[in-house]
Amino acid sequence: MNSVINLEKKFAKFSEHWSPKVIAEMNDYQFKLVKFQGDFVWHSHPDTDEVFLVLEGEMKIEFQDRLVIVKAGELFVIPRGLEHCTRAAEECQAMLIEPRGVVNTGASTSELTATNDVWI
Amino acid sequence: MNSVINLEKKFAKFSEHWSPKVIAEMNDYQFKLVKFQGDFVWHSHPDTDEVFLVLEGEMKIEFQDRLVIVKAGELFVIPRGLEHCTRAAEECQAMLIEPRGVVNTGASTSELTATNDVWI
Repeated sequence: MNSVINLEKKFAKFSEHWSPKVIAEMNDYQFKLVKFQGDFVWHSHPDTDEVFLVLEGEMKIEFQDRLVIVKAGELFVIPRGLEHCTRAAEECQAMLIEPRGVVNTGASTSELTATNDVWI
Repeated sequence: MNSVINLEKKFAKFSEHWSPKVIAEMNDYQFKLVKFQGDFVWHSHPDTDEVFLVLEGEMKIEFQDRLVIVKAGELFVIPRGLEHCTRAAEECQAMLIEPRGVVNTGASTSELTATNDVWI
């Protein structure tokens, strides 16, 4: 039987940035927690939308023609296939929701490409 | 282009209980906000898991053999096909994540069956 998942306790289990940790699965979708600060890399996910729910701090999502600021208590759906780059001046904590198997750097590979499907 | 979705502002747009409102879509999944108090009806969703993220207050989820308490900042995955009944002594505010088309009372129908796919 599934357990109740406390987000704060799960966030306390890791400190590294740009390395999403899986906390739950719903059908073939995963819920992941991530901490980050600084600039990520430009990338896209050709096959899926991706949702960020910011839980602490704020993030910027840069698109080719637009800059979006998502603060704690706010949610944003990044449309499939759209090139974007995430940033945070101060550490930001967020929950990501996306299909199982999605890699953080999407179709790109870089030193920020995280090991996928790491559960905490 | 998608908008940033502020959960608190969306919750302020409705007051009725047991009537999930859609705030976002990711692929064929929907994010819904719901307020509730009192007892729901026993039901199950034969074809899908269902996620509750409690944002304010606390909810009880009763299963045939177990009672689960989910508090603010906690998430729970209700497995597909499992009969359950949700309750809240005081008003609880939660986000539901599930595939588009899922009805709140699942395979059952009752006076608590809400109109589906209502966006706010």
